[in-house]
Amino acid sequence: MITNNEIKFIKSLAQKKFRDSSGLFVVEGEKLVAEALASRFQVEKVYRKADIGEAAMARISGLSSPSPALALVRRPDDLDTGEMPAKGLFLALDGIRDPGNLGTILRIADWFGIDAVFASPDTVDVFNPKVVQATMGAIFRVRFHYTPVPQLCKNALKAGGKVYGTFLDGENLYRKALDNGKEAPSIIIIGNEADGISKDTAACVSDRLFIPPFPADDPGSESLNAAVATAVTISEFRRRQIK
Amino acid sequence: MITNNEIKFIKSLAQKKFRDSSGLFVVEGEKLVAEALASRFQVEKVYRKADIGEAAMARISGLSSPSPALALVRRPDDLDTGEMPAKGLFLALDGIRDPGNLGTILRIADWFGIDAVFASPDTVDVFNPKVVQATMGAIFRVRFHYTPVPQLCKNALKAGGKVYGTFLDGENLYRKALDNGKEAPSIIIIGNEADGISKDTAACVSDRLFIPPFPADDPGSESLNAAVATAVTISEFRRRQIK
Repeated sequence: MITNNEIKFIKSLAQKKFRDSSGLFVVEGEKLVAEALASRFQVEKVYRKADIGEAAMARISGLSSPSPALALVRRPDDLDTGEMPAKGLFLALDGIRDPGNLGTILRIADWFGIDAVFASPDTVDVFNPKVVQATMGAIFRVRFHYTPVPQLCKNALKAGGKVYGTFLDGENLYRKALDNGKEAPSIIIIGNEADGISKDTAACVSDRLFIPPFPADDPGSESLNAAVATAVTISEFRRRQIK
Repeated sequence: MITNNEIKFIKSLAQKKFRDSSGLFVVEGEKLVAEALASRFQVEKVYRKADIGEAAMARISGLSSPSPALALVRRPDDLDTGEMPAKGLFLALDGIRDPGNLGTILRIADWFGIDAVFASPDTVDVFNPKVVQATMGAIFRVRFHYTPVPQLCKNALKAGGKVYGTFLDGENLYRKALDNGKEAPSIIIIGNEADGISKDTAACVSDRLFIPPFPADDPGSESLNAAVATAVTISEFRRRQIK
């Protein structure tokens, strides 16, 4: 059974203000719900089509074809903790706006074992339903925090770490020395889809990188998509650690 | 001036059947229209807000905020020519369904100088407005053809070429010998978002690749997004050619 008030409440979680006030977000799909249950996240309630019926499921679902399971999950309480571990390889997102991009970036971070992802406060909400679905479950495994990115980078530099960013005038990613964060924090900055890395953040970058096009002297495209550039960059860091 | 019949016609091009019957597709945005005009594509007509007015522009636009320019562009007549050049590095898309993914893949192909992209007939229409916008202009530079992928791969093998695909039981991409197609065709297969590479196509793969996660023994995510896997794979081919 599900009451009209519950339906109304679940639907309200499509909006950030209601996720903020309740501390809950929605997860849909058998596989994602199972991953939520197996994770460190606290699952408040699971609704199954078998229990509440197809019509009720269609009302609470945000998907075009409602899935057989939907869960209300509590946001972790370390969401706004901007503290960086003393070492490790981190991502810092400088204003990612597209939910699909953010979800894809979390999947990449999960695949390549990024120790935590930090995001500027103007980055899209990670509990937006489109982000949650696009992560394919990575949201339950990757540490994620909102924090001002320039301050984070300054702290990393102060701790003897490195801050990497991709720029059109950067150095060839494939040939540059890269620090995987074994001794001090290494941060890879991902810029906004349209505007790239902001001025304040760019001022903290210690190592400017560039993904060479092919052939190297061919202008061609002006840029790669934010998630794609993220993947190529992190892959280069990890390929040097993998036998 | 723009007539009601023109408006109706332009709006009809959002549907594939009307793009097929007319041979035309829609391009929106100052930058994209300029790229179309500078390309080998034939631009049939350009509508500008300055000429037809904001109200008419809003009616013909498929974007949530209409841009100042929209062009009708003729599809190239080599769209269904499945002939492969005697050498080069190619992509073959085995049922990519998401317009955003296809657009992003064309951007990647453009950046990394892929000689042509082939797509199976069940791949999403490359002139779908969402694909066109997501390519950021790469659609005007990258050669693109629809063709049955298994036959294409068989032809490449017959010509002494290689066919690469990523599989969970493939070999470490970073350590494997890769042929850039300098002597014979090399094809990189990109599988469908949900189902991966089809059985018929997999049967033609000569070299099975795998993008190692990190750490190598951590299951973590099950997979990378199709466009992301494409980028990491092509990047590895090109990094060996770039000084």
